[in-house]
Amino acid sequence: MCRASSLPFAIPSPLRYGELAGGTGHAAYGTITGMPETDTDTGWLSREQLRDARDRLPILYVNLVPVRVDERSQVSSVGLLLRATEQGQIQRELVSGRVLYHERLRDAVLRHIERDLGPMALPQVPLSPQPFAIAEYFPTPGVTPFHDPRQHAVALGYVVVLMGDCTPQGNALDLAWLSPAEALELAATPEMGGGHGVLLRQALAHLGHAV
Amino acid sequence: MCRASSLPFAIPSPLRYGELAGGTGHAAYGTITGMPETDTDTGWLSREQLRDARDRLPILYVNLVPVRVDERSQVSSVGLLLRATEQGQIQRELVSGRVLYHERLRDAVLRHIERDLGPMALPQVPLSPQPFAIAEYFPTPGVTPFHDPRQHAVALGYVVVLMGDCTPQGNALDLAWLSPAEALELAATPEMGGGHGVLLRQALAHLGHAV
Amino acid sequence: MCRASSLPFAIPSPLRYGELAGGTGHAAYGTITGMPETDTDTGWLSREQLRDARDRLPILYVNLVPVRVDERSQVSSVGLLLRATEQGQIQRELVSGRVLYHERLRDAVLRHIERDLGPMALPQVPLSPQPFAIAEYFPTPGVTPFHDPRQHAVALGYVVVLMGDCTPQGNALDLAWLSPAEALELAATPEMGGGHGVLLRQALAHLGHAV
Amino acid sequence: MCRASSLPFAIPSPLRYGELAGGTGHAAYGTITGMPETDTDTGWLSREQLRDARDRLPILYVNLVPVRVDERSQVSSVGLLLRATEQGQIQRELVSGRVLYHERLRDAVLRHIERDLGPMALPQVPLSPQPFAIAEYFPTPGVTPFHDPRQHAVALGYVVVLMGDCTPQGNALDLAWLSPAEALELAATPEMGGGHGVLLRQALAHLGHAV
Repeated sequence: MCRASSLPFAIPSPLRYGELAGGTGHAAYGTITGMPETDTDTGWLSREQLRDARDRLPILYVNLVPVRVDERSQVSSVGLLLRATEQGQIQRELVSGRVLYHERLRDAVLRHIERDLGPMALPQVPLSPQPFAIAEYFPTPGVTPFHDPRQHAVALGYVVVLMGDCTPQGNALDLAWLSPAEALELAATPEMGGGHGVLLRQALAHLGHAV
Repeated sequence: MCRASSLPFAIPSPLRYGELAGGTGHAAYGTITGMPETDTDTGWLSREQLRDARDRLPILYVNLVPVRVDERSQVSSVGLLLRATEQGQIQRELVSGRVLYHERLRDAVLRHIERDLGPMALPQVPLSPQPFAIAEYFPTPGVTPFHDPRQHAVALGYVVVLMGDCTPQGNALDLAWLSPAEALELAATPEMGGGHGVLLRQALAHLGHAV
Repeated sequence: MCRASSLPFAIPSPLRYGELAGGTGHAAYGTITGMPETDTDTGWLSREQLRDARDRLPILYVNLVPVRVDERSQVSSVGLLLRATEQGQIQRELVSGRVLYHERLRDAVLRHIERDLGPMALPQVPLSPQPFAIAEYFPTPGVTPFHDPRQHAVALGYVVVLMGDCTPQGNALDLAWLSPAEALELAATPEMGGGHGVLLRQALAHLGHAV
Repeated sequence: MCRASSLPFAIPSPLRYGELAGGTGHAAYGTITGMPETDTDTGWLSREQLRDARDRLPILYVNLVPVRVDERSQVSSVGLLLRATEQGQIQRELVSGRVLYHERLRDAVLRHIERDLGPMALPQVPLSPQPFAIAEYFPTPGVTPFHDPRQHAVALGYVVVLMGDCTPQGNALDLAWLSPAEALELAATPEMGGGHGVLLRQALAHLGHAV
């Protein structure tokens, strides 16, 4: 079973913070600490290059709804990441991240799940590349229900079943498993801002839940 | 433009009522007057035969969400039928009805739209037979969010754009056009019981709305 | 791993044959032996009652594409049932069967997989009830690409990942695992008649394959 | 009705050719003349900037399948663009193009249809942003069925119904309307290279056709 980590709401180290000042995840808004947006491990883009691209092109993302299911594939719980904003607020998030150059969507899904939930999460990538929804994040609020002050991003939404042990990694303080009903309720609050709550509710509607 | 009918909430005539005691639409629950369920005009099934089948087989339905769209195909309004129950309550409904023997799904969509909204509604049947959702109506409440005391019905959900003039027909007292926001709100009330509200919200989620 | 059974193309026993003369699966056409269509174990419908309903109502089915996937959820092989027709011809089929009264779609999927592939197949029911396709089988050939001389059936198509050991049961002579490329080729031949080949190719298209 | 243009296979003027040497559309491969890739009219990216981004990020596209439908929304014909490659070969293409910074997907669909088919094509943008397929174009052949030597592009596939008069614009030499059967056949030939043929066949599978 995938246990929620017992990590306290640790304050990221200054070094880490400095490295990541730009923020990265969708809901991050450049204010949530700790999301290694510039993929320095892969070296695809320098921070300047990424900022440059963001001023000129829509950036492709995946937005992932981690779930556990029972033996009939009914969702028993939804996994939400807990992050702290720079202002010290707690934010609930989906697993989210960019698709890299020359990276297949399947590999982007696996990489982001591993980055946030660890190498033992055993994710089941969706069979079909058809996403359940497309989220258009605009830097201008109000154009769509999705908003990202850093950029124009277009995210493909997928539900990902986790079969293994999840240990929140990197900048995620914790991972909380909620029942679908709890998740639906939380998704309607400001704790899931910027559109992640909207996408979560769309996901549960797609899975047949009353939303 | 498709105008809402100016019909008052007329009480159906006793004759009509007697004819239709069995009820018919999903949300009808055998209590909403006026839905000619036995399709006596087509003569496919006698009422007894239909009751018989309903005790033994899931019955195939289509559940249709009538919408008007702007020039970019964004939903500008959602059309909901107004019906009176036998108890005199007002109920809001989607367009809904059975698929007949040897009838194509496309033709069932067209037939039910014409039956409820008249011959000038100019519906656009969805291009793909893939429904946006499947609603499983059980005679036992609580098995799914969908409930129909008369039968086990499985409905394919489709969004149908109307291009023409709608005039509520048959047992529909009226047709109301609501903004997506109004429709979402109404869909969460008991005025849309039995599951039609749930399906409507799933439809709007599928179309990209925040639900 | 799910091994193809080593059963030869055994001729069903007369008793069995007699019991099942009505045939049952979609591609069966009433001519393929061995599909226990009347669900005598569940007692939902006598054969006469089912025949009666078939003359008057579309019958709801599920059509299931059994697959094995690699660790990135890419289809590595497709499982096809082998059946003998009464004329002694070999037919390749998807797993297919009726949805029973008061049965959820998820349960129908699990039941039919177990009936044909045994109790250790460990199927993953799709997360969402939204099917990848709807197959409309008409008793009249040519109305759609799907044909079933026995009835008007409407089948919801799902791809089902199998995680366990498959042992062909009941009337299936054998189960063959083919690569997606082999399956696509076979699906275009008369060995997959009545529409199962069409649905299989639609499934692989949906999964992103070149068809 | 949307008539196919009577334009001969005109050779683009040198000036035009010079302007567009970089090529642009998916199937263009940098070799098909005439697709104004750098959107000089909108001024979003200089050619150098776009080339730069292409070396580092997946570029977001829409791939559009233009169709005409009958009154039951069954596809009666598929519209394919005719282009000449620099080598003088004729290529059939879908309508395809980039999504611009701060552009909604709906607007990108409308813009590219107008660019290729003129202002009177009266396209119906799909109701839902959910694409029927995702095409991952890699600069390296063989990674997926989709190939674009210029870039890593991820295209959202949509079917677009055209209600008006189409007049091939810009770099399209002509627009041909084919029956679904003819389109399926053509889609399997080298005349529709790079993946447009694959996507077209996936689209027709999604619409319920036998592929």
